[in-house]
Amino acid sequence: MKIAVVGCGAVGSYYGGRLAHAGLAVHFLLRSDYETVRRQGLRVRSFQGDFQAQPACARFPEQIGPSDLVLIGLKTTANDQLPRLLPPLVGPATALLTLQNGLGNEEALARLFPVSQVLGGRCFVCLNRLAPGLIHHIAHGQIVLGEFQRPPQPRTHDLAALFTRAGIPCSVTDDLARTRWEKLVWNIPFNGLGVAAAAGYEAAASGQLPASLALGPCLPTDQLLADSRWKNLLRRLMLEVIQTARALGFDVPDSLADKHIERTGNMGAYRASTLLDFERGLPLELDSLFLEPLRQARQANVSVPQLAALCRLLEAMEGARGHPPVRE
Amino acid sequence: MKIAVVGCGAVGSYYGGRLAHAGLAVHFLLRSDYETVRRQGLRVRSFQGDFQAQPACARFPEQIGPSDLVLIGLKTTANDQLPRLLPPLVGPATALLTLQNGLGNEEALARLFPVSQVLGGRCFVCLNRLAPGLIHHIAHGQIVLGEFQRPPQPRTHDLAALFTRAGIPCSVTDDLARTRWEKLVWNIPFNGLGVAAAAGYEAAASGQLPASLALGPCLPTDQLLADSRWKNLLRRLMLEVIQTARALGFDVPDSLADKHIERTGNMGAYRASTLLDFERGLPLELDSLFLEPLRQARQANVSVPQLAALCRLLEAMEGARGHPPVRE
Repeated sequence: MKIAVVGCGAVGSYYGGRLAHAGLAVHFLLRSDYETVRRQGLRVRSFQGDFQAQPACARFPEQIGPSDLVLIGLKTTANDQLPRLLPPLVGPATALLTLQNGLGNEEALARLFPVSQVLGGRCFVCLNRLAPGLIHHIAHGQIVLGEFQRPPQPRTHDLAALFTRAGIPCSVTDDLARTRWEKLVWNIPFNGLGVAAAAGYEAAASGQLPASLALGPCLPTDQLLADSRWKNLLRRLMLEVIQTARALGFDVPDSLADKHIERTGNMGAYRASTLLDFERGLPLELDSLFLEPLRQARQANVSVPQLAALCRLLEAMEGARGHPPVRE
Repeated sequence: MKIAVVGCGAVGSYYGGRLAHAGLAVHFLLRSDYETVRRQGLRVRSFQGDFQAQPACARFPEQIGPSDLVLIGLKTTANDQLPRLLPPLVGPATALLTLQNGLGNEEALARLFPVSQVLGGRCFVCLNRLAPGLIHHIAHGQIVLGEFQRPPQPRTHDLAALFTRAGIPCSVTDDLARTRWEKLVWNIPFNGLGVAAAAGYEAAASGQLPASLALGPCLPTDQLLADSRWKNLLRRLMLEVIQTARALGFDVPDSLADKHIERTGNMGAYRASTLLDFERGLPLELDSLFLEPLRQARQANVSVPQLAALCRLLEAMEGARGHPPVRE
């Protein structure tokens, strides 16, 4: 079993690291972290026990070649790199598994390769990349695996068994698209409002960037939940996303909002990935996490005023920072 | 891989038959159908294509001996037979998978064997046993597999892969108990009202057996759905079951009611298993399908007047037929 990992940020490194630690032949495709990981390997500080792994390291996909499984952990803002990075890794029997955030990622793979080679995984995990080759695994870790646009196949279950044996809890869904929406119910408010908070509550609620452009700090999960105004806004956004999911035919109950809020309360002060991107001056995953869900809500004729305001503000903040939003 | 099937009615025969047809070593434990299945094998008329299978046949579990997997398809009214039937089939590494209806079946297994050996499967399938050794597979067929009281293990995914390869679509849940409740949202109204219909609509709504005791016919799914009074009662029952599930902490949305109703409308005139039991004079699965859910609703302080009325009526009908309800 030859496994290639494309996009060795927190998500790709953590899951690829678990598989390498379990003794599988894992190849990391690296850019800036190449030297560090090749020399020191990967170190994971995990709440379940620290571990190290030594994946094979490559700078170019041609050095890895066709693999049985390609794990994609790339930022979705870099999806335009997929046509360049993936083909050397993919043969006719290669399974492509995207662990990326939001909507549109399976579709991006299915534009390049046969639909039957595409799987998606929804990760429920708190990770931060602390430094090159150093990942902090803060909480959780499970993956919901599913095939793109078809029911689970034998290989889906084989992959789930492989992951489970490597210490990655898995379930297998027959409805990957629904699980994507369930995750957006968390991602949109905690990522979006966490960053929007830098512009202030009024800006987040109205979608209007303040004229001063003086930005404060982002708010991690615990601070959003500790303030009743933010908590109410979180919940309103969640319910809009849930309503959209239901309008699209997915059974997502309103009670998921409270469940997410309760679970997140147990996570402490977690800085979701979009906050880290923002604070580091990296482009935000606007399209997959916010704009594509908004487009789908509008196509389904769902009224989503808070989501629309959030998208407006995030686009304005991104534009003000000099990262014009990526449009397809 | 040695597989034993205990309870070779429609469910056990169908799933065991698929596994045998796929070339696995499947042993049926049979009573009344022993001679027929041993001589002619098992025939399945399936909407996906007819097939035959020749499982090994046994009259006593001692003839089969310890197996890797035991599939339990027994009527839950026969669960008192489990302590006699199962021990010869079970070694320390045997997986026990109950495919039975309703609540309490995993618990019954876990009273006999270590919890870690117990799995449950929620079947979404329309089957009827037409005659000894002859099964009609009308629609669907998928199973949701889960471990009892713990997350999916490597062997859960291995079993799901085995089933999928044998033509049984599977997903793997990390919340078996929730899937049990989702299924009850269908089972309680369509099984319960289908039989209650024999006593008339007023009896079903009020829970009072009419003094005349003159029983009409049971109503299959299409006739329940075609009459707005029955359809409303179906929906009220579904919402009570959903409310109970939520009170117990399971994310089950109200929209599941309409989803079940819509799906069932596509199933044609289906006679759920309790109707067949009733029409054949067999005991009904009162405890697992109706009384245990009612007990759990009451413990959770959920108001379930229609479920209580249905249970009262079914118990009275069962008593009037001479099958006193089984109490634990």
